[in-house]
Amino acid sequence: MTIETVSTNKAHGGVQGVYKHTSAATGTEMTFSVFVPDHAPNEKLPVLWYLSGLTCTHANVTEKGEYRAACAEHGIIFVAPDTSPRGDDVPDDEGYDFGKGAGFYVDATEEPWATHFNMRSYIESELPELVAANFPADMARQGITGHSMGGHGALTISLRNPGRFKSTSAFAPIVSPLNCPWGEKALTGYIGAHKAAWREYDACALIEDGARLPDLLVDQGTSDNFLAEQLKTNLLEQAVDDAEMKAMIRLQEGYDHSYYFISTFMAEHVAWHAERLKA
Amino acid sequence: MTIETVSTNKAHGGVQGVYKHTSAATGTEMTFSVFVPDHAPNEKLPVLWYLSGLTCTHANVTEKGEYRAACAEHGIIFVAPDTSPRGDDVPDDEGYDFGKGAGFYVDATEEPWATHFNMRSYIESELPELVAANFPADMARQGITGHSMGGHGALTISLRNPGRFKSTSAFAPIVSPLNCPWGEKALTGYIGAHKAAWREYDACALIEDGARLPDLLVDQGTSDNFLAEQLKTNLLEQAVDDAEMKAMIRLQEGYDHSYYFISTFMAEHVAWHAERLKA
Repeated sequence: MTIETVSTNKAHGGVQGVYKHTSAATGTEMTFSVFVPDHAPNEKLPVLWYLSGLTCTHANVTEKGEYRAACAEHGIIFVAPDTSPRGDDVPDDEGYDFGKGAGFYVDATEEPWATHFNMRSYIESELPELVAANFPADMARQGITGHSMGGHGALTISLRNPGRFKSTSAFAPIVSPLNCPWGEKALTGYIGAHKAAWREYDACALIEDGARLPDLLVDQGTSDNFLAEQLKTNLLEQAVDDAEMKAMIRLQEGYDHSYYFISTFMAEHVAWHAERLKA
Repeated sequence: MTIETVSTNKAHGGVQGVYKHTSAATGTEMTFSVFVPDHAPNEKLPVLWYLSGLTCTHANVTEKGEYRAACAEHGIIFVAPDTSPRGDDVPDDEGYDFGKGAGFYVDATEEPWATHFNMRSYIESELPELVAANFPADMARQGITGHSMGGHGALTISLRNPGRFKSTSAFAPIVSPLNCPWGEKALTGYIGAHKAAWREYDACALIEDGARLPDLLVDQGTSDNFLAEQLKTNLLEQAVDDAEMKAMIRLQEGYDHSYYFISTFMAEHVAWHAERLKA
């Protein structure tokens, strides 16, 4: 469980690092970034996971996410993994929405994907152990968020692991892969056509099937080009209403799907997580 | 004086735009970005110019600069120009520190650079007219800042135009092209070997020759790899001391030359400009 430091830069009083390691889950080298705020010797800090969307690596949010000032203020470690395995041995698809950059946070069962595309195990099991072993992280205080495909990842991972995350939020999440073209393509490819198996990778289905979060914050831009066809925030609104689950789902007027949207609301999300992680 | 909109994104309640136009100064198409915060109809806002460093375009600070939250809070327009002319017709150099991406904010007199490399005229004259004509900008309230080569640009442009800028700051500026390899190469190339002509492009020389600013803020990281050989902040400290010019030059422990450094102190710079622009 050794990690190699790719780079570190002092930022907002803390250290923004990029690291790589050989992953057992994906059978590849994986890169991730971690921001550790300034802290007292031996102090352990809460951890906020950020799962990225289609086409992204760790770098997009690290450069454009504008989370460091808020994480420094609240004393929260920010972890940003990659979105898929990478490398010449890893199969790929011509589309931006399947294969590399599009792991969908599932453990693939279909060939040729099953060997490497195990992002569920990577994010749920392997990377948390690495983070716990290598950073001043208080793993009893974890929150999770993400954008688009990463919002789907945050919601489903949190719903499937009750109690692990004290706080869950998302930016413009895919709320139901069962009900959108991105989900149809990716889940058919990674885990096959039998849709009953998709339900554990579908936030709305998980809630329908009884999973619950203590609370939830979602921001969604009204000018997001993917809202109507892919994201379908209304399905999540319906699911949390039906389940009488506490949730704040906010439609943000005029915002699109980009990091200009994410960075606008990032500080609020970090503060919202901090309230729950430091309660 | 028409500009074409490349993109607009809602961000932090305002609009982050990217625009292009045909420049008379450079004889090329030029791209720049402007953030306009939310404001009342017919309200005109102060303008903060940000000049970028070697290799950069408008995009680096637009994506990584973390200025929008502060500009929205203080009601300040943020303008980020490119660092040189671009295009197949524009001559270039193999190095990253001369030619494209390295205009040094001079008007070149040497061939083959003189035709296109007129970034001084572009930033001092042409672009301000465009900004005044196309954005809700109060040109009586302008501030200027920049990074590295762009810090050099901000300092020299402000020093040469007394009274135009109510506030001037810089991040890790090149303070004396007369006294560093980057300056030697670029100014020899653009304006020739006769060093007397360089003095109007050298912040320290301009101060020695009598130019003054009412106030100045400079941040410089102590772990900046370029500090000793290229940036030489001590020369600026000496020049402002000798001139008894008011200046706050801060050495920031452990920070490097990257946007992790810039974004850490950006909000403070914007607030410092806001105080002076809105006084």
